[in-house]
Amino acid sequence: MITILAGTNRPHSRARRIAHYYQRLLTELGAASQVLDLAELPADFLISALYANVGRNDGFNRLAAVLDAADKWVIVTPEYNGSFPGALKGFIDGLPYPNAFRGKKAALVGLSSGGQGGLQAMAHLTDVLMYLGTAVLPQRVRLPFINQDLNAEDGLNNELSRQLLREQALALLAF
Amino acid sequence: MITILAGTNRPHSRARRIAHYYQRLLTELGAASQVLDLAELPADFLISALYANVGRNDGFNRLAAVLDAADKWVIVTPEYNGSFPGALKGFIDGLPYPNAFRGKKAALVGLSSGGQGGLQAMAHLTDVLMYLGTAVLPQRVRLPFINQDLNAEDGLNNELSRQLLREQALALLAF
Amino acid sequence: MITILAGTNRPHSRARRIAHYYQRLLTELGAASQVLDLAELPADFLISALYANVGRNDGFNRLAAVLDAADKWVIVTPEYNGSFPGALKGFIDGLPYPNAFRGKKAALVGLSSGGQGGLQAMAHLTDVLMYLGTAVLPQRVRLPFINQDLNAEDGLNNELSRQLLREQALALLAF
Amino acid sequence: MITILAGTNRPHSRARRIAHYYQRLLTELGAASQVLDLAELPADFLISALYANVGRNDGFNRLAAVLDAADKWVIVTPEYNGSFPGALKGFIDGLPYPNAFRGKKAALVGLSSGGQGGLQAMAHLTDVLMYLGTAVLPQRVRLPFINQDLNAEDGLNNELSRQLLREQALALLAF
Repeated sequence: MITILAGTNRPHSRARRIAHYYQRLLTELGAASQVLDLAELPADFLISALYANVGRNDGFNRLAAVLDAADKWVIVTPEYNGSFPGALKGFIDGLPYPNAFRGKKAALVGLSSGGQGGLQAMAHLTDVLMYLGTAVLPQRVRLPFINQDLNAEDGLNNELSRQLLREQALALLAF
Repeated sequence: MITILAGTNRPHSRARRIAHYYQRLLTELGAASQVLDLAELPADFLISALYANVGRNDGFNRLAAVLDAADKWVIVTPEYNGSFPGALKGFIDGLPYPNAFRGKKAALVGLSSGGQGGLQAMAHLTDVLMYLGTAVLPQRVRLPFINQDLNAEDGLNNELSRQLLREQALALLAF
Repeated sequence: MITILAGTNRPHSRARRIAHYYQRLLTELGAASQVLDLAELPADFLISALYANVGRNDGFNRLAAVLDAADKWVIVTPEYNGSFPGALKGFIDGLPYPNAFRGKKAALVGLSSGGQGGLQAMAHLTDVLMYLGTAVLPQRVRLPFINQDLNAEDGLNNELSRQLLREQALALLAF
Repeated sequence: MITILAGTNRPHSRARRIAHYYQRLLTELGAASQVLDLAELPADFLISALYANVGRNDGFNRLAAVLDAADKWVIVTPEYNGSFPGALKGFIDGLPYPNAFRGKKAALVGLSSGGQGGLQAMAHLTDVLMYLGTAVLPQRVRLPFINQDLNAEDGLNNELSRQLLREQALALLAF
């Protein structure tokens, strides 16, 4: 089982659409997966699930359990302000340390409407995940200009992007 | 006027105590300042002040206005999971771009209970601020082992730390 | 006086050509500048100018003096293997610490044949410069696909790139 | 076979001594290894083994072959100016891309005389290695205050450091 994380709490995000694209890709490759969309986070989780409240928010715990059910993760992260979203970092800040992370393996996908493709977002996220004991697949996929490339059927117009995601998925299965 | 930002929404945080220490330091140096504590963020700001709701949350807007009232900032950031807090990134994600950041100047202070002293937190935060057009003072101060060094009177037992903060404050005034 | 550093020891590099482009730009803006090309480094400087030999290599010292003669720098760095060149880092490793860096101000330009535009190279270089006490201008300019954009007359075909460099140069003069 | 890289060209470096410490550790764990000391690099390799000369320097090629003979690497890097040495980056810049890196696995050890322990050096090196297709073990070991901890018999006085290196070595064998 692989958990595919849409790494923003923005409703109906492109990250969520790419997460579903990735799920179809994994299905084609014969691998079971589930999508975890941070848009389902309780609105006040940054207080009600952190600090003195760690572990006490049922809605948060449900999402944490979905993540924990898989040893391999795909994290799809948009680029907000040159890094990954505060909502994703807040989610990580609320997870039990180090049990949630140690021994896990993650593949990263970065999205941006501009030309960066989430490069710096993925570099920062790698620093955080490795600090927590999660191995990160070296193949990190940048999806720049995602506004143009993601079409109405949630397919990707860009063949290079499709190929890179497929190679990454195969590498994650073998990681 | 300098705004000193306590960069976590944890209630009664050490970051807040260091922010007040910094305020006393600036007062000694003859500079006016105000403390902005992210613990005052509305509990649900990650939804109610972001995305379609940017600019619509009065509580959030009040904090944003405090930040905007100063051209120089001190950002005191704890280290959570090898980077800066999700709450601080979420606050940045909700601010108006690029007006909130362009032309501002920031000094960074990192705290940790371990030996890092928020080094990586400050490196990531620098990447974000520079991306947004804020100049970052090269003197970034690490305060490792803050649990031991911050005493009951909110003073710092560590003389080197006191000296580094003083040098940083002087550099910020001249920046 | 501004020193423009071509940040690789590759002979006849694109970084050198961009450095000369930048010099013409500064001349137009009425600012004096000089180009320092790391291709002039002594071939064996990584041994003959470092460690026990710091300060003992005349050829290296000559280049270090050119850098030191200016308080403002433009550093043009290609992207080699996802970061800035080893030759540039080696040059930095041989400079007298902290005198060469403290109080200096730097503007960064990144080049790549691919789509990154030296983003990560500039992020790493910023970490190093700030560690050494050099202030880095927040406006960092990425020049992706430089093979296509740099023409035979050492002009830039890309208007956005020309505009970003001009804005950066003006910001450096005011920094 | 594991190659342990002493990541500086400084003669008789502490990185080399830690590399030999690591070799004894691997021997205890029943794993074969070899030490590759960048002090053996030809003095002028930054010119004679790069750019138009890639692959043409026999001395450089000999070291590259030692690296290539192993699928797993331990890279021991000192911290020079807030990052890893220019000599190590230059060595990487001269290796054949991507054959030298793709599919390799690396464990990183950082050294510093100060309190950082090479944290930023290892973060930058991780960015480079992952860009090149090498998987990096999440357990990165910081050895701060190495001047005090490395004793005359090339043992480590610090028990925590010894334990972290042992755990890292076991994790690398299982990676």
